[in-house]
Amino acid sequence: MDMVEFTPTPEQYGWTFGGASPLLEVSPGTTMRLWTEDAYCGLLTRSTDKASELLRGDLNPQTGPFFVTGAEPGDTLALHFVEVQPARDWGVSTLIPLFGGLTNTVLAPTLNEPLPELTWIYQADLSKRTVLFEALSGEIAIELPLEPMLGTVGLAPSMREARTSLVPGAFGGNMDSPDVKAGATVYLGVNVPGALFSVGDGHYRQGEGESCGCAVEGAMNVTLIVDLIKGGAPAWPRIEHDDALMTVGSGRPLDDAWRISQVEMIAWLNSAYGLDRLDAYQLLSQISECPIANVVDTSFSATTKVRKRFLPAGGDRFGGIHERLRSQGRQLL
Amino acid sequence: MDMVEFTPTPEQYGWTFGGASPLLEVSPGTTMRLWTEDAYCGLLTRSTDKASELLRGDLNPQTGPFFVTGAEPGDTLALHFVEVQPARDWGVSTLIPLFGGLTNTVLAPTLNEPLPELTWIYQADLSKRTVLFEALSGEIAIELPLEPMLGTVGLAPSMREARTSLVPGAFGGNMDSPDVKAGATVYLGVNVPGALFSVGDGHYRQGEGESCGCAVEGAMNVTLIVDLIKGGAPAWPRIEHDDALMTVGSGRPLDDAWRISQVEMIAWLNSAYGLDRLDAYQLLSQISECPIANVVDTSFSATTKVRKRFLPAGGDRFGGIHERLRSQGRQLL
Amino acid sequence: MDMVEFTPTPEQYGWTFGGASPLLEVSPGTTMRLWTEDAYCGLLTRSTDKASELLRGDLNPQTGPFFVTGAEPGDTLALHFVEVQPARDWGVSTLIPLFGGLTNTVLAPTLNEPLPELTWIYQADLSKRTVLFEALSGEIAIELPLEPMLGTVGLAPSMREARTSLVPGAFGGNMDSPDVKAGATVYLGVNVPGALFSVGDGHYRQGEGESCGCAVEGAMNVTLIVDLIKGGAPAWPRIEHDDALMTVGSGRPLDDAWRISQVEMIAWLNSAYGLDRLDAYQLLSQISECPIANVVDTSFSATTKVRKRFLPAGGDRFGGIHERLRSQGRQLL
Amino acid sequence: MDMVEFTPTPEQYGWTFGGASPLLEVSPGTTMRLWTEDAYCGLLTRSTDKASELLRGDLNPQTGPFFVTGAEPGDTLALHFVEVQPARDWGVSTLIPLFGGLTNTVLAPTLNEPLPELTWIYQADLSKRTVLFEALSGEIAIELPLEPMLGTVGLAPSMREARTSLVPGAFGGNMDSPDVKAGATVYLGVNVPGALFSVGDGHYRQGEGESCGCAVEGAMNVTLIVDLIKGGAPAWPRIEHDDALMTVGSGRPLDDAWRISQVEMIAWLNSAYGLDRLDAYQLLSQISECPIANVVDTSFSATTKVRKRFLPAGGDRFGGIHERLRSQGRQLL
Repeated sequence: MDMVEFTPTPEQYGWTFGGASPLLEVSPGTTMRLWTEDAYCGLLTRSTDKASELLRGDLNPQTGPFFVTGAEPGDTLALHFVEVQPARDWGVSTLIPLFGGLTNTVLAPTLNEPLPELTWIYQADLSKRTVLFEALSGEIAIELPLEPMLGTVGLAPSMREARTSLVPGAFGGNMDSPDVKAGATVYLGVNVPGALFSVGDGHYRQGEGESCGCAVEGAMNVTLIVDLIKGGAPAWPRIEHDDALMTVGSGRPLDDAWRISQVEMIAWLNSAYGLDRLDAYQLLSQISECPIANVVDTSFSATTKVRKRFLPAGGDRFGGIHERLRSQGRQLL
Repeated sequence: MDMVEFTPTPEQYGWTFGGASPLLEVSPGTTMRLWTEDAYCGLLTRSTDKASELLRGDLNPQTGPFFVTGAEPGDTLALHFVEVQPARDWGVSTLIPLFGGLTNTVLAPTLNEPLPELTWIYQADLSKRTVLFEALSGEIAIELPLEPMLGTVGLAPSMREARTSLVPGAFGGNMDSPDVKAGATVYLGVNVPGALFSVGDGHYRQGEGESCGCAVEGAMNVTLIVDLIKGGAPAWPRIEHDDALMTVGSGRPLDDAWRISQVEMIAWLNSAYGLDRLDAYQLLSQISECPIANVVDTSFSATTKVRKRFLPAGGDRFGGIHERLRSQGRQLL
Repeated sequence: MDMVEFTPTPEQYGWTFGGASPLLEVSPGTTMRLWTEDAYCGLLTRSTDKASELLRGDLNPQTGPFFVTGAEPGDTLALHFVEVQPARDWGVSTLIPLFGGLTNTVLAPTLNEPLPELTWIYQADLSKRTVLFEALSGEIAIELPLEPMLGTVGLAPSMREARTSLVPGAFGGNMDSPDVKAGATVYLGVNVPGALFSVGDGHYRQGEGESCGCAVEGAMNVTLIVDLIKGGAPAWPRIEHDDALMTVGSGRPLDDAWRISQVEMIAWLNSAYGLDRLDAYQLLSQISECPIANVVDTSFSATTKVRKRFLPAGGDRFGGIHERLRSQGRQLL
Repeated sequence: MDMVEFTPTPEQYGWTFGGASPLLEVSPGTTMRLWTEDAYCGLLTRSTDKASELLRGDLNPQTGPFFVTGAEPGDTLALHFVEVQPARDWGVSTLIPLFGGLTNTVLAPTLNEPLPELTWIYQADLSKRTVLFEALSGEIAIELPLEPMLGTVGLAPSMREARTSLVPGAFGGNMDSPDVKAGATVYLGVNVPGALFSVGDGHYRQGEGESCGCAVEGAMNVTLIVDLIKGGAPAWPRIEHDDALMTVGSGRPLDDAWRISQVEMIAWLNSAYGLDRLDAYQLLSQISECPIANVVDTSFSATTKVRKRFLPAGGDRFGGIHERLRSQGRQLL
């Protein structure tokens, strides 16, 4: 099994999905050890730092893109996350004017004064596996469990598009789903030769919806296995855990993101388990979990999650690739 | 402690929140043992039955309204659910044309042909605590855990309105939240003298979002304790479990429902724990759970859920009434 | 032809559609001369007046409801507006905190500070047929044409509901459509015996969308003819002018309001002109005018407007009742 | 004054805004005579032709991009349309499965069967200035006035993005606004050196909203004058006619598109006429026209239109460039 280690220089950061030249070519089956910078390019280190002053508008640097040997449009890229580990002992979150879920924004403008710009620093205790929330007003401090995840994972979009790393879509991207974590396999439909995937936007933890637009942002060490399934491209990103299947839809308003994730899950249950589409619709009505991923980006993301214990035995989920990669991944730990 | 038992006759069913005369007056502190009919008035019993033929348009009968002695506008009604138990050994779900989350509807019409009308019967095994999904096409059958809940709990709306029992809102109503279950205390802001609350729409289980518009619908035996807090009316429904606080926002599109639930939770964290509003916004960004309640009714419902273990010690949640009612409730079991 | 004159006392104001007892019974064919108070109950008369201080939360008083002899569910109420004339020489508009199209609102809340409360008084020159906009900051003053219209026209809703006079819906209500003016016939589907219609919310003029939530609000003298068509109830409000047909959809988000108005227009073109539904869809794609009525109420309203000159000759529009009432109305002037 | 004539070969068609190399460099002040192919690449010529069979997924070819000498980020590109004339004596429109305003779509999916694929051919009579709608079912035919416009006008987006020619945004693009027609000046904020603008998607006429997703599509001969204003970049596209100012917002849902257009118009009225923002909000409430541009693309477009006769005298609208270009343009006719 091939192994590639890669840490990008700032000049190598990716800022888009699509539209950039690949940094490396990797074969299916390759294990990659990647480093990802935080969404603020590592420039915010104190609660007095302001994103508007220290960043030049560039947010959410990606590690990638990587060209996957043999990947063609219509194929399915499988990225199995073996480890997602904080690379620092602190994380950071901010309130950015005209950005977030509970404020006027550029895409939903009002005449109100914007909210103020604020920065919170979270100390991380990697042995206790916690991060520390400290209120800016008053003395309240709360220990929260470390739950590392990646906000972005995606590949080059269809239709010759290049999209900013701030937006999610059918190509993945900035979905901000807490389900993209160690142990997960993410399936993405390939649109261009080589797939051209990137990852980034590590979160030491995040609430569902990512209310203010920013999680506990932090640099990450990521170990993943790249694999390729010929054909079978899903229309929207799919995620597999040992105990659950997930689909992520992105759009506006949030109900359409939810609809996309539900219809994609019905398609998956239909093809993998032979469930009639209307039976699958009925079954989802009784078993779906629907955690919201983000209500803050320029497109919102909703998740449909189904526990495998509520599905028929058997089923063909991309030929059992998750179990195989999971087993490979365990040997790497 | 007073105890009232009540089973409505069909003539006594409530079809609205507001606009109907109370069936009974109850004092704060009263325990009620209520029976609720299913959303189809108990008329659908076989998979060949069709709602469009057997019902005359009346759906979702409520048990109530009940007048609460002393309740005035601005007060807070607390309903603590001690038990929510299936009253039958079967439940039922349907596909109703022009209704549901993945279809054209009356309020989001298209020119497509509607989906067909279909009925699923679920056998319930009350000792094993399961319901059985049986596909209409093919042989697939899946045992699912019984997780009884009430789709509707609400009181008379503000502004002299009467709203159908099919819609959720600031008055509660058809929220279809799986969190309204045994062990939960629901807090509702009182709008009219006596509050005039009702409950109904029992679900033997339901997925988040209630995709097709119908859960495993079933009659219920409900034990609840009615209580009243003078003043303190929340703007939107709040729910308390032993381990979590929840707020439910309803609106369209779903993102606005989510916004309502988040802003209401921030108000709650601010008043109960002294968290500054922007600190609470930041904290929610890292700890919110956001299960979707419904994306199918004429107004959608989103939940913000916060685990108490992630909140500061102490806090004044309606004077600790949940713990008190919970303790009373346990003695009734 | 019967003639009824009616001016409500403040105690007689209607605050809801549905849920109130009729003030009068009128026969189809009756001409009514009605007076309607402005949306602020006439209490705001100076630019230093504030709605939050002078009103007790009651907004948008209606003149009605009126019981129409013989009206049954499924029938079509036709209200032909002969005259809509300002009853005062001034109008008034306001900025109300948490209300309007470009602000955070109760149903789309954010954490921003609300906009300030402001009041503009418009002098009306009834001989020149103008109202005068005077900026609160600076010296700018602009004469605008008087274009009187009624913000609300509606009847009792279906499903036993009573809705505040602030909301539009399938029952009409607070649509805020500039097309409800002298010369228009409004068609509404009857839901309850007697129809129970009301009118109000006079606007001396209004932009499409009613951006801040308030038009140039003013008391009106309204002359209308009440008529009844047995059966044929439209699903949503329809309006006929001498030169155009309109349908008004209400909902959230605005695209769904637009969809409703389009599908209703396609149904109308299909039944009145025999146009196939998909041909009508194609034709609408090339001839629709789509002025927005309101993006500010608790439900938004969108209009589909079709010029009669772009429709086939002939056609059966409610049996030609508009032409007949128009002719009757002209004799009253 | 420079004059450039350009007709693209199929290999030169643009399919994106951004991400493509310029075909020509032109200086500010240049007059261009351009030919634009129709949205179907001219491949649909009969009512039995189907887009799904004849096109390979490439829709909406653009003429461009063109590099404007001296254009820098933050500048304002002014494109004045002198003539927009049909280049053929027929146009074409279609129903495309999973595309349009009254159907399930890729971004708002449901489980309904898609609508059928259909094609309408419109004969154009360029002397009478009409196009002929002919129903596919039945004998109905209706003459409609020719009202030529361009569905797309845009330049390279910000943030390193390349967007398909099917989507509108802050960069212009597929707005489908009937106001982009002869006599109009379009103002766009420049994001990259050279601006890189393109035009295309001629419509022989179009209803507001473009209900089914397709206007009367046709090839065009376009005469335009390119000009550049240093600085002053508007956030969203602005349009000026002799008698009106317009702003076009794009987003989802439609209410957000409307909000964008309103806030942009308020900014324009503020800077051009010195109207206080809240006074401008109030004035818009009484004078806005809000024709919907499109409710069918992957982002919707709404227009705010203000008649100049309702604005203060004077005002500085990009230094009076529209009047100057209009005068130049008249000399070309």
